[in-house]
Amino acid sequence: VVNWFWRKGTKRKRVEAPRLRPRSEDVATKVDLADLAPHREQFLGQAAYIQLVIFEGLSATVAGAPTLEAKESLSTAAGVSLAKYQALAAEIRRAGAEPGDFMAPYTSSIDFFQRVTTGADWHESLVTSHITSGILDDFFVKLASGLHDDLAKRVAAIYAIDSHEDLVAQQIREAIDADPKVAARLALWGRRLVGDTILVARSALAAAPSSANDEARIEPVFTELIASHTRRMDALGLTA
Amino acid sequence: VVNWFWRKGTKRKRVEAPRLRPRSEDVATKVDLADLAPHREQFLGQAAYIQLVIFEGLSATVAGAPTLEAKESLSTAAGVSLAKYQALAAEIRRAGAEPGDFMAPYTSSIDFFQRVTTGADWHESLVTSHITSGILDDFFVKLASGLHDDLAKRVAAIYAIDSHEDLVAQQIREAIDADPKVAARLALWGRRLVGDTILVARSALAAAPSSANDEARIEPVFTELIASHTRRMDALGLTA
Repeated sequence: VVNWFWRKGTKRKRVEAPRLRPRSEDVATKVDLADLAPHREQFLGQAAYIQLVIFEGLSATVAGAPTLEAKESLSTAAGVSLAKYQALAAEIRRAGAEPGDFMAPYTSSIDFFQRVTTGADWHESLVTSHITSGILDDFFVKLASGLHDDLAKRVAAIYAIDSHEDLVAQQIREAIDADPKVAARLALWGRRLVGDTILVARSALAAAPSSANDEARIEPVFTELIASHTRRMDALGLTA
Repeated sequence: VVNWFWRKGTKRKRVEAPRLRPRSEDVATKVDLADLAPHREQFLGQAAYIQLVIFEGLSATVAGAPTLEAKESLSTAAGVSLAKYQALAAEIRRAGAEPGDFMAPYTSSIDFFQRVTTGADWHESLVTSHITSGILDDFFVKLASGLHDDLAKRVAAIYAIDSHEDLVAQQIREAIDADPKVAARLALWGRRLVGDTILVARSALAAAPSSANDEARIEPVFTELIASHTRRMDALGLTA
């Protein structure tokens, strides 16, 4: 697997947050990712470890929550991520391996992602959990269609587990209502997260897009992810 | 509710870790705590918030775990605490309240407990999760018998959810095997935790034991908690 973080030598390439507006937000783009989609082991290893990292982020927001109501909501959200992780780990066991076996190749790049996307405070951490899990769950749902039929169905069911999106978004909206000045900072942080998150998504592909043709083929997928991200930011009252 | 931390003026009273050895470890002491046991609201508020704090502690150990195997085990353990918290929160809703309503009176003393029992590193944090949840779960199971019949049964079922005790203990034993020098420090830390944890348990009683007779009546309960604690430390290879 190509590690996109370190693709050009050892210096990390900065990526501008894409600012494309989708041509249409209503038509879901159908793109065949089958030959670029990762195989079972790659898919489950990355998907599971990403869910574990999202769980860690959400549970840190529980510990840092300023009110019992926020703790209550966010603990439910953390439980949803944990349930997704555990279901993906169960798929790894079903494939005859231990979760750690499939996740190990991906920990260093995803730990790096976790480090650079850690918020400076509780509000930024909420935005990190909301925005990165939103984009990555969307992407892994798309990738899952490249798995064999039974597994694809079971994985789709895992990602269809009650979302924590509303619970986390609600906390962010309340924080902005309570102090509208934080909106500008959170908008900036939300934009800052996109580049790193899209890199993690790209690195989940089985093979790096190797031609202009490949790039043209996958571009609509990322355009769609950005469109969903923009809607998510809009729903928070933040400019993407 | 008497707050035992601040019982004597504003200065916190230091409590020596009890070192009593039980006269018999085999005979469970039967003590009627009924008139000292908290009512539904007090019980559920404290039990739920303690479980939430234990969840926070365990999920921090997931984030700090040095290996994927440890992350995997501890995420399961964190899930068990979260499930207990959610079941207790559901009992609060069943009683017609929001979890925060019942938990609010207890947050400052339990947050204080959380602060003073936070480990200095990952190993100490594991011991904190293991030892404090062990003692407090034991105690709340005893207190639950003072609730009305139906609720007592449902609460007993909540505490009977798969325990995370073995998962956390296993991580501690592996750490000690890998570096036997940590054992002395962890034994000291384990002893240090007992006093603070017993204070939280005492403060969960509906009324402070107000006479030598009350004290004599509840003493066997605490002797039994310490006996279980000693067995838990022994199982880790640590001297209590």
